[in-house]
Amino acid sequence: MLSKNQIKYITQLKQKKYRNQHNVFVAEGIKVVCELLESPLELVHLYSTEEWQIPFPEALFTIITEAELKKISSLTTPNQCLALFKIKEIKTPVANGLKLALDDVRDPGNLGTIIRLCDWFGIEDLICSKETVDVYNSKVVQATMGSLTRVNVFYTDLSDYLKGYEQAVFGTFMDGENIYKQSLPTEGIIVMGNEANGISKEIEDLVTRKISIPRFGKLQQTESLNVAAATAIVLSEFKRNGL
Amino acid sequence: MLSKNQIKYITQLKQKKYRNQHNVFVAEGIKVVCELLESPLELVHLYSTEEWQIPFPEALFTIITEAELKKISSLTTPNQCLALFKIKEIKTPVANGLKLALDDVRDPGNLGTIIRLCDWFGIEDLICSKETVDVYNSKVVQATMGSLTRVNVFYTDLSDYLKGYEQAVFGTFMDGENIYKQSLPTEGIIVMGNEANGISKEIEDLVTRKISIPRFGKLQQTESLNVAAATAIVLSEFKRNGL
Repeated sequence: MLSKNQIKYITQLKQKKYRNQHNVFVAEGIKVVCELLESPLELVHLYSTEEWQIPFPEALFTIITEAELKKISSLTTPNQCLALFKIKEIKTPVANGLKLALDDVRDPGNLGTIIRLCDWFGIEDLICSKETVDVYNSKVVQATMGSLTRVNVFYTDLSDYLKGYEQAVFGTFMDGENIYKQSLPTEGIIVMGNEANGISKEIEDLVTRKISIPRFGKLQQTESLNVAAATAIVLSEFKRNGL
Repeated sequence: MLSKNQIKYITQLKQKKYRNQHNVFVAEGIKVVCELLESPLELVHLYSTEEWQIPFPEALFTIITEAELKKISSLTTPNQCLALFKIKEIKTPVANGLKLALDDVRDPGNLGTIIRLCDWFGIEDLICSKETVDVYNSKVVQATMGSLTRVNVFYTDLSDYLKGYEQAVFGTFMDGENIYKQSLPTEGIIVMGNEANGISKEIEDLVTRKISIPRFGKLQQTESLNVAAATAIVLSEFKRNGL
């Protein structure tokens, strides 16, 4: 049974300001919740319908009805459970290793896919401009499939960060060097841009190596690749020779 | 001004059965509609608010109010116009060239991204199992950004199609050969699987070369890549040596 105050508290967590105020975020659905329960994240509370019961201390676990779940869920089709977790502490990015940076990526699905790619390719630090969509947005949490516990997502003034960065700064541009013909280092940072506008002028000025994914279509009319698809190709190219 | 019948007709086109019955699909928003207007597709009708007027024959063009646009739109935030186009004729896939096949890909955003990838990498034929989401689903149309006019999306019984296919059939599996170390041909078909279950058993039996994208993360816990991200990496690998 949920009180009105509990419902209000949980639904407010859809907004970033309340997530930051309480230092808590929401995860939904059996698959994602199970992945996060197995991670080092601290569980605040788990709500589930009778279908999905696990032996959990009463203080952390409440059985709710389908109707109650619908009230607190962000999903069109709620899936048996919803859990609140503590937002994990953000570590300052380490000095070495290959890093990825996002300049104003707005789509939650794209950020989620990019976090999974970082996890897959062993990129420990993802540096995001302050305009990039929040990693604890419910759609991002759903799309990461648990990878968010293994990647350090660090929000900062991207321009300031790059000014203080001492190694190569890569950026993808239509007129960059063919990525397939470059010798790519194991250290450095790769910047990916906004869905509609690409990398901003301010950040472009801080890029030291412009790279490009060549187009192969006969007509050459394709305007652009989706940013998550482009990130997949770029990370694969940087990593493929290291095996 | 829109009649009740017109509103009913347009909103019914959200369903595949009505799209197929009338052979018409819906595109929305200035960017996508402009791309399709410049393509060989046949326009059936264009509806736009007063903000966006273009010199168009009256028989093909109606000015509508914001409120009317909201009634016929599938978008949360309708963007000035909505157009109906004739569904283009599907060509039988040609015998040669590299092809992509989808075994039950359900997410419209994934299909849209994959169509853009085919366009980018010059893959002319995309073979889809009958369970794969419909290419004229409004979310797919939005996500393709016009690429759908340049890629031949062919729905068929995938198992029968592959049984009749005479060249190599590639499929991605966790236990496949490291894709970075393979000699990859310029002819053949690459099968990508469902978001949750991967490639089905029936289709797996028809795969002649199993490939795999290696994981690089220290913990190796990442369960899988998003199917569109995996498609991006695989197509990039097949094409990178052809330049």
